Amino acid sequence: MLVQVLSLIALAAQAITAALAAGRRNMDWVGVCTLGFVAALGGGSLRDVLLGHYPLSWVREPYLLGLTAGAALATTFLSHVVKRMAELFLWIDAVGLVLFTISGCESALLGGATPTISVVAGLITGCFGGVLRDVLCNEIPLIFRSELYAAVSILTGTIYVVGRHLYPGASAVTLGAATVGLACRMLAIRYRWQVPTFRYSDDPPGSGGPRRD
Amino acid sequence: MLVQVLSLIALAAQAITAALAAGRRNMDWVGVCTLGFVAALGGGSLRDVLLGHYPLSWVREPYLLGLTAGAALATTFLSHVVKRMAELFLWIDAVGLVLFTISGCESALLGGATPTISVVAGLITGCFGGVLRDVLCNEIPLIFRSELYAAVSILTGTIYVVGRHLYPGASAVTLGAATVGLACRMLAIRYRWQVPTFRYSDDPPGSGGPRRD
Amino acid sequence: MLVQVLSLIALAAQAITAALAAGRRNMDWVGVCTLGFVAALGGGSLRDVLLGHYPLSWVREPYLLGLTAGAALATTFLSHVVKRMAELFLWIDAVGLVLFTISGCESALLGGATPTISVVAGLITGCFGGVLRDVLCNEIPLIFRSELYAAVSILTGTIYVVGRHLYPGASAVTLGAATVGLACRMLAIRYRWQVPTFRYSDDPPGSGGPRRD
Repeated sequence: MLVQVLSLIALAAQAITAALAAGRRNMDWVGVCTLGFVAALGGGSLRDVLLGHYPLSWVREPYLLGLTAGAALATTFLSHVVKRMAELFLWIDAVGLVLFTISGCESALLGGATPTISVVAGLITGCFGGVLRDVLCNEIPLIFRSELYAAVSILTGTIYVVGRHLYPGASAVTLGAATVGLACRMLAIRYRWQVPTFRYSDDPPGSGGPRRD
Repeated sequence: MLVQVLSLIALAAQAITAALAAGRRNMDWVGVCTLGFVAALGGGSLRDVLLGHYPLSWVREPYLLGLTAGAALATTFLSHVVKRMAELFLWIDAVGLVLFTISGCESALLGGATPTISVVAGLITGCFGGVLRDVLCNEIPLIFRSELYAAVSILTGTIYVVGRHLYPGASAVTLGAATVGLACRMLAIRYRWQVPTFRYSDDPPGSGGPRRD
Repeated sequence: MLVQVLSLIALAAQAITAALAAGRRNMDWVGVCTLGFVAALGGGSLRDVLLGHYPLSWVREPYLLGLTAGAALATTFLSHVVKRMAELFLWIDAVGLVLFTISGCESALLGGATPTISVVAGLITGCFGGVLRDVLCNEIPLIFRSELYAAVSILTGTIYVVGRHLYPGASAVTLGAATVGLACRMLAIRYRWQVPTFRYSDDPPGSGGPRRD
């Protein structure tokens, strides 16, 4: 129940931060609502399309469309309020990352997926809404470039999937995975932990083939 | 029957305008054909993938591939003709927007979707071929930034879905929704109606988290 | 058996070249692994999602995730080695293009697809991993702009599908299609064969509608 409420808050928060990204690119309300919807629900939709789980969550529960598009649209009127709460949104976003990762793992496990695939399903659910948002904003996805974000999702998912295997049905597993994930994400923000970067700059002068760029 | 012919003309027109977009980016014939195909058939394909309706239209009717790729390729030889008919293409595009929206709604309703989801299905069918085209052209999707386009689709879809609910089987509903949609789109072009834009430019200096851009 | 081994090598090679693309954009390890995975397995996944064939290959065989992500990650440590083998990678990439095209055609034929759709399925399998990689790198897909790459895939697929129709079960068909495809690709690289380009630059000054760009 608490998880349900937290999930809805986190969905709205992701729609709101996506709306700000839309605003930075001077999009109109159509762009704002679409981006809010895609950022919040795109990760779970991509997971379900890849796993062939139909119907998608927002098809089953169309109010999710209203929630995310509404939160995004409200942001256009309340951006000054949102701006002052930037810190709060980072927290809510971290909660969302962890919750959506776990719900993605759970959804895959229920569908009979192997442990590896379940962790991947959690990663897609938690992080790929943001990837789709960045693609629509014509940016290289931020999670490919900075901070401990996807790594937190993989860690959370791994703890959850292994835990569920060892202690089926123990809700302590959910709580443990969520706590570790949330702590990691918070520490990563505070201490600016990064995943190592790969820098490669040698384009051989006259080179060629399609797959080489 | 007339609807069928108009649909094919509109599909070809969308492939042709996508081919021009490819030409502006100096793509080769592969890019031209792919972009034509994606712009014309991508919206319906995305709808069917999201709703889990298989097989997709162009898998059932492969001649659609030939039609769209052919129209796109022909454009490379006839771009001077196409250029002189820019006005005409705006009209055909508007007809396509309205027809594809209605066919998307209808397809979702037949699949048992709720009214809200049916309107969304119409929106995806009518507008998201263009979104995919713009993503492949490495642009922020145009419908997120300008003019009354997606809004016309939502209006048309809403009239159609509500009308079908009140008067099942009345073909006057289709005609009414199409007429209103077409009129709106034409007025929007003539009077340059816009959806309000959201401008937001405050990136707090040292800020951080992945979801914040 | 040989085909199986060659396929795995080619998958790894595509992940490696994608990792270099990630490195050129200073992505972190998350980006490197994701891009490697998407480039290597994205084409086949897109084909299966479009055709509704579930489960996807990497869901059935999760070691493919490890192979591609591992190859991509290893590249960050061994980029100097990879660089010296650029020529070799072009060869392996060409083998992959041909093999994945044929496996895509075969997969579609087994699923009961028509010949046209089977050729398209081969094209998507062989080339669209690279398209998805380029979209995530925020580039116009390279195969839309340069060299004989998608065209080789279409040629290979057509020979294979026609051959299989005429001589069902003859493994000479696979060998023939692969040989012709590989030869074409190699000649295209050596002699810099290109698909004709479409250049179009007339944006009428005050123009408008969403589909016109």
